[in-house]
Amino acid sequence: MQTLHVDLGERSYPIHIGENLLGNTDLIRPHVTGKQVMIVTNTTVAPLYLSKAEQMFSGYQIESLVLPDGEHYKDLKTLNKIFDALLEARFDRSCTLVALGGGVIGDMTGFAAASYQRGVNFIQIPTTLLSQVDSSVGGKTGVNHPLGKNMIGAFHQPQCVVADTSTLNTLADRELSAGIAEVIKYGMLGDEEFFCWLEANMNDLLKREPDALAYAIFRSCEDKAKIVAADEKEAGQRALLNLGHTFGHAIETGMGYGEWLHGEAVGTGMIIAADLSKRMGWINQDDFHRVEVLIDKADLPIRAPASMTYEKFMDLMQRDKKTISGQIRLVLLKAIGEAIITADYDQELLAQALNEHHALPSTRKIGI
Amino acid sequence: MQTLHVDLGERSYPIHIGENLLGNTDLIRPHVTGKQVMIVTNTTVAPLYLSKAEQMFSGYQIESLVLPDGEHYKDLKTLNKIFDALLEARFDRSCTLVALGGGVIGDMTGFAAASYQRGVNFIQIPTTLLSQVDSSVGGKTGVNHPLGKNMIGAFHQPQCVVADTSTLNTLADRELSAGIAEVIKYGMLGDEEFFCWLEANMNDLLKREPDALAYAIFRSCEDKAKIVAADEKEAGQRALLNLGHTFGHAIETGMGYGEWLHGEAVGTGMIIAADLSKRMGWINQDDFHRVEVLIDKADLPIRAPASMTYEKFMDLMQRDKKTISGQIRLVLLKAIGEAIITADYDQELLAQALNEHHALPSTRKIGI
Repeated sequence: MQTLHVDLGERSYPIHIGENLLGNTDLIRPHVTGKQVMIVTNTTVAPLYLSKAEQMFSGYQIESLVLPDGEHYKDLKTLNKIFDALLEARFDRSCTLVALGGGVIGDMTGFAAASYQRGVNFIQIPTTLLSQVDSSVGGKTGVNHPLGKNMIGAFHQPQCVVADTSTLNTLADRELSAGIAEVIKYGMLGDEEFFCWLEANMNDLLKREPDALAYAIFRSCEDKAKIVAADEKEAGQRALLNLGHTFGHAIETGMGYGEWLHGEAVGTGMIIAADLSKRMGWINQDDFHRVEVLIDKADLPIRAPASMTYEKFMDLMQRDKKTISGQIRLVLLKAIGEAIITADYDQELLAQALNEHHALPSTRKIGI
Repeated sequence: MQTLHVDLGERSYPIHIGENLLGNTDLIRPHVTGKQVMIVTNTTVAPLYLSKAEQMFSGYQIESLVLPDGEHYKDLKTLNKIFDALLEARFDRSCTLVALGGGVIGDMTGFAAASYQRGVNFIQIPTTLLSQVDSSVGGKTGVNHPLGKNMIGAFHQPQCVVADTSTLNTLADRELSAGIAEVIKYGMLGDEEFFCWLEANMNDLLKREPDALAYAIFRSCEDKAKIVAADEKEAGQRALLNLGHTFGHAIETGMGYGEWLHGEAVGTGMIIAADLSKRMGWINQDDFHRVEVLIDKADLPIRAPASMTYEKFMDLMQRDKKTISGQIRLVLLKAIGEAIITADYDQELLAQALNEHHALPSTRKIGI
């Protein structure tokens, strides 16, 4: 087991990464202050890991809440089910919420913890690669709105995170690839050495080789933690983490939540970002090719769906949280391993990049 | 005009108090950073003050949202209407929300500002006495849940508060009295001199004499600001501000939100707290009498409704946010002007105090 400490002053917390951590009582007990624990999970994860998770909290007043699975349940209505359960069980301010599942469960449970009685403790046990490398670090919580993804939420840091790589053995291939998209992102935006490691080790990740997974998770969290520690509330450089996300969110929203997985949309979004960077003359054709090849190798879609026209992208992107006063700021590449946040790009080249990456024939498994 | 500075480090802000402040552009412009302003108000306040409020923000992109009036609309569903409006108008992270109305509008708009895109700026223009002395200071925002009041929310400080005493001229008598209940609270819990001032000047307040109102508002906010500055997230002494609230919330929840006004329930709750303090031998009969007389003089109910039995009180209070691990902590009096937070009281005496203060004939205008 490896432990990464996320340094955020009095909101600092550890991330434990390794095999067979679920059920290990010692890891989480120091982080539970009250007597009441509610485990929030979903219908997919509950049969696999809920009883093991409950074992970790034996001796506490444990309640478990099993929500329906899927991004389209990440809304205020489902969030309210958590509040219902907490109030029916008379949970007080000293309680702890535990998120057992992927990013949707983590984001919703985290926001419930941020808002219940104006803030209670929470612990994350992410069971997907995406949530282990993404929502483990940063404290972003929230739910979707029909008009935009993650539009309602809070910054709320967990007490600790337990990333058990063994839980990835039950993950669908498509979910694994979606997680790898976020892993690739850390290489692309600020860690060229890691990008090279991924080029060399992608097959081991796809084969779920435990050491490769643990290394990729640790390094991703470490890269993310450095950025978050410097800019917790996303006043500046933290926005680099949105590489591929402005385009990706537009695809997710445009197709309806859940149709494309978040990581899949981000993967395609990163290709569009790299393409625009190439058209701006900031990276060369070879670097663009390396990005496209690596994302393709991770078994991710490399083209946006045909219905995502330039006009549709623009309409959706103008609603994105990163848009300040109407001007769309994008995360683009100056090199592999060096991203920038900029509104200083050519609108015509953006149109070209968006047109290039939709409506092409695709062999990917996702409907276009 | 007087200005009180609430000192909370980088979250510090001014409260401007005085006559005819509404429409004064200079007061709020320094606090609006972006170009987009949404004024949230209700059907009662809009016809009276919305156009004046809009004048304050001329030159900005102004949107106004008029919500239905009443405590029973303070829920997630109505909150979501604010998010709908913000997203439909494509408001971005640099926007400012303005709460124009009483406590319900302030709490909901504040929570919307705390959660929209994980936090945007907001300005409060409270138009009731209760909201001028209560929600002006402290940053508590939130909505109700059918199983408990203010159970979902966040701490979120405004950029500035404008308390225009002229807006109190249109306030219903019952609303004025409800506000005075919170004013009395500051005297009772930590400011005996102010309590004496209220005994001498209650008639001027009820007559809405502008100088008396401004003094009471300033002193209440000042008293509250001292407590909040020392304990922003309610880890300890801030809970003193809940004097009368544990009992009061039980009355509000038990009767259904909106039946009793918050301040009315708090007034009766303070009498119960004083009665229990007397039974514990902490204050004498004379002090208890002073409390009861002052609350009565403010034209507030001094008895809980007949349906609020001891059992019903206990059931509802165990769900209160101030309850830690099943034990009900109460704010009680050691003297007029000296409150304490304690779980060290006699349960039998609590039962007596609760039985004493319900089911008695009442001449108050509220149904019992």
